[in-house]
Amino acid sequence: MKGTVKTPKISDAVVRRLPVYLRYLTYLQQMNVKTVSSQQLGKFLDINPAQIRKDLAYFGEFGRKGIGYEIEYLIERIRAILKLDQRINVVLVGAGHLGHALSNYNAYKKDNMRIVAIFDVDPGKIGKEIAGLTIEPLDRLKETVREKKAKIGIIAVPAEAAQEVADMLVAAGIKAILNFAPVNLKVPEDVRLHHTDLTTELQSLAYYL
Amino acid sequence: MKGTVKTPKISDAVVRRLPVYLRYLTYLQQMNVKTVSSQQLGKFLDINPAQIRKDLAYFGEFGRKGIGYEIEYLIERIRAILKLDQRINVVLVGAGHLGHALSNYNAYKKDNMRIVAIFDVDPGKIGKEIAGLTIEPLDRLKETVREKKAKIGIIAVPAEAAQEVADMLVAAGIKAILNFAPVNLKVPEDVRLHHTDLTTELQSLAYYL
Repeated sequence: MKGTVKTPKISDAVVRRLPVYLRYLTYLQQMNVKTVSSQQLGKFLDINPAQIRKDLAYFGEFGRKGIGYEIEYLIERIRAILKLDQRINVVLVGAGHLGHALSNYNAYKKDNMRIVAIFDVDPGKIGKEIAGLTIEPLDRLKETVREKKAKIGIIAVPAEAAQEVADMLVAAGIKAILNFAPVNLKVPEDVRLHHTDLTTELQSLAYYL
Repeated sequence: MKGTVKTPKISDAVVRRLPVYLRYLTYLQQMNVKTVSSQQLGKFLDINPAQIRKDLAYFGEFGRKGIGYEIEYLIERIRAILKLDQRINVVLVGAGHLGHALSNYNAYKKDNMRIVAIFDVDPGKIGKEIAGLTIEPLDRLKETVREKKAKIGIIAVPAEAAQEVADMLVAAGIKAILNFAPVNLKVPEDVRLHHTDLTTELQSLAYYL
């Protein structure tokens, strides 16, 4: 089926699992593993193997009996579906500890998705460097988004500033926002907003104690 | 059905969605909203309402036609299932930017789940304070885990140090680990290991551009 299957619209739940598959597949690739079964993937990722087979069949991937999935090809397909094979520029607002941690995250360097600008309102931070980027004043946001053709914005500011930052990102033409602030934000219908925080995984972990 | 349904074993996928429901329900509660329908929840969280009804029915929650779910009661139930109504002590290894961001995260303060100790190997950091906690040397880990009866460990160290830290957490008796380092770790069968990173959500966001 390689290359011939048109990718259908994929459900949100599957889209959220694809980066999880991708992370483990990339690890296996680094270990020089060539193929993997849905059982092996499932055992490591704590996902039902039947679910994995269903997810991957979604975009026309079928493991071969007794062999499993070809890792290299699967990585390529997932990256293409997630558009990680295209260059996507990201702007980050908030140069606190979380902003620092995000900028340093080496995973970005493997993707074509890259943080290309960092903003803050603190005069003590503006002009300083994080991970090779100079912190810009927030009022430069619109201009920089346009110049760098940024498509995604990350909000890593305190809760009370987050809505204002979201409005500025939207006004600058950003169509996808990842919000780390612990507050629910309003954005127009045509802007995709994901909310995440560092504690969601921690909360689900307690269940297993 | 209130209070009479014994909670069955819940699938990992559902356990991972419960903190997401909880976050939005808590927000609604703060806004003084009393009830919510699966449609409303679904629209906000980008999850199919049928999936939400199925998830909640899992532990005996049924929305009432035309009224929906009682928010306060639902919050209480989810917190109980996730064991967030019990005090759970967490130790954090790694006092870099990510460790700082984690320690400062106010979500912890709402839960009974709390970071009670922070460790690092850097002599320049040991003895300093983050969020009211004094950074301890890593060789104090076992002792402190025992003293504080910590149950969960968070790994926020560079990839190359992560396996060693995981081994130390396991040796100290920790049974659930949340790993932020971009590397796959090995732990014994009876230890629950979750891997997360700051980029998973970002990767799934690109799909929607």
